[in-house]
Amino acid sequence: MTEGTRAFVPGHVTGFFTSDPHTDPTKAGSRGCGIGLSDGVTVTVRSAENRSIRLDGDPIEMEPVERVLGALGARATVTATADLPLGAGFGVSGAVTLGTALAANEVFDCRLSENELVTVAHGAEVQSGTGLGDVVAQARGGVALRLEPGGPHEHVLDGIPARGRVEYHVIDDLSTGEVLEGETEGLTAAGEVALSRVVSDPTMETFMRASREFARESELLTPAVRDVVTDVTAAGGTASMAMLGEAVFAPGTGLSDAGYDPGVCAIDPAGARLAPRTDSR
Amino acid sequence: MTEGTRAFVPGHVTGFFTSDPHTDPTKAGSRGCGIGLSDGVTVTVRSAENRSIRLDGDPIEMEPVERVLGALGARATVTATADLPLGAGFGVSGAVTLGTALAANEVFDCRLSENELVTVAHGAEVQSGTGLGDVVAQARGGVALRLEPGGPHEHVLDGIPARGRVEYHVIDDLSTGEVLEGETEGLTAAGEVALSRVVSDPTMETFMRASREFARESELLTPAVRDVVTDVTAAGGTASMAMLGEAVFAPGTGLSDAGYDPGVCAIDPAGARLAPRTDSR
Repeated sequence: MTEGTRAFVPGHVTGFFTSDPHTDPTKAGSRGCGIGLSDGVTVTVRSAENRSIRLDGDPIEMEPVERVLGALGARATVTATADLPLGAGFGVSGAVTLGTALAANEVFDCRLSENELVTVAHGAEVQSGTGLGDVVAQARGGVALRLEPGGPHEHVLDGIPARGRVEYHVIDDLSTGEVLEGETEGLTAAGEVALSRVVSDPTMETFMRASREFARESELLTPAVRDVVTDVTAAGGTASMAMLGEAVFAPGTGLSDAGYDPGVCAIDPAGARLAPRTDSR
Repeated sequence: MTEGTRAFVPGHVTGFFTSDPHTDPTKAGSRGCGIGLSDGVTVTVRSAENRSIRLDGDPIEMEPVERVLGALGARATVTATADLPLGAGFGVSGAVTLGTALAANEVFDCRLSENELVTVAHGAEVQSGTGLGDVVAQARGGVALRLEPGGPHEHVLDGIPARGRVEYHVIDDLSTGEVLEGETEGLTAAGEVALSRVVSDPTMETFMRASREFARESELLTPAVRDVVTDVTAAGGTASMAMLGEAVFAPGTGLSDAGYDPGVCAIDPAGARLAPRTDSR
């Protein structure tokens, strides 16, 4: 078996978002804001007779990853290892999808640009109903503000200048597909209010405040998440709900200070990238 | 004296470029392609009675840095340490300028977004005649393709998906200002040809080939640079001229293989970022 090509894609925790459908998947997507995480997914792509996908050792069906392999004409095995759980609001689906595009481009000498690869991965997520904005944020890194929806040829991005520790605490899964297939007008209205607040004051404090208000206004906030957020606030910190998962994220030591035993990582400034070659060339 | 805030900005070596003047400095700039380098500049900004700038320990006048401090209303000392020489085509001027904007934004609680800070730094470089495209490429990281000129509200960026070792060899300085004040129609025409080649095949091989053709066609290639590039090619590698400096860059081990004792770094995927706090929060 060949060594293959590895890519690392940061996790992404969304604080608030809108749903912006479009018949063209490269124009569909969402606006919003979230944090690229140094905990993420490492994806290895190897040429193979039959396509297969493994996540943390187990075979798995991932429609957007299949779509990317199809779009790139890539007969390959995809082996992903994730620092974060799937389905809990950390963009693991988007990370495997984007990492597959980046790595397969090299293995199969597709000669696509970064924007083209992000477009393929973003479109695959939208068509599969697994995500709307993670991929473009994960490609950029940092604390990405998505001002206009869609792939790289359509969207407008900005960022909050910030760095440092991020903590997270997972309670349970939520299905992105089920939420996005439901009524989204209310959450989009709440997302637009949150976005306009952060655009007028692009700081982490305002991002966290806008995210908490969005969780409440969109009615996505669950009682279990609300309890954790309340604990963090009582301990002098700030936290909000990871969209879309039953999980809580907090900058700094917010969850530790409130007595939780959280996952600990940091804001990832870089975005998705091919991993260094082992011979350091 | 306060500890201040630190930012790291990657160096940037340009392979080819156009000159796209405009009366609005946020719309002026250049198109082209270059490599963000893991060797770069660390900038520390501290609040102070009197403005001052030091580079590698020595007081220095840097007009674009003064402009940024003025635009942000920041009375500060700027202390920069560079892994790369000033004036040799590695974007050190842009790095100090952008790093000052990022760090001063935090020290003085300016509450600007990343795009706004990049706009301030880009405009300062353009107005000072010290650079046209380094700042926006340094903000992005990776191997940035600048498809349209200007600051973040105007430009269009893409990237070549690549990583790995980069070597460089410095022969002498060139003044960016003198070249840009001269006749630039010929170099812009050569830059447009190079850009269209790389857009149609966004790979490192094509980037290096287009860069070498640009160096020759633009008549910026010096005899000393040409000799080094010829040596690298003879040794089986690929190299081109750092725009604008009398310096050579090569992906992989091109310069080592040809018997030179080069600076060694790697493609930096991240772009400019605030440095981690020492308390790791």
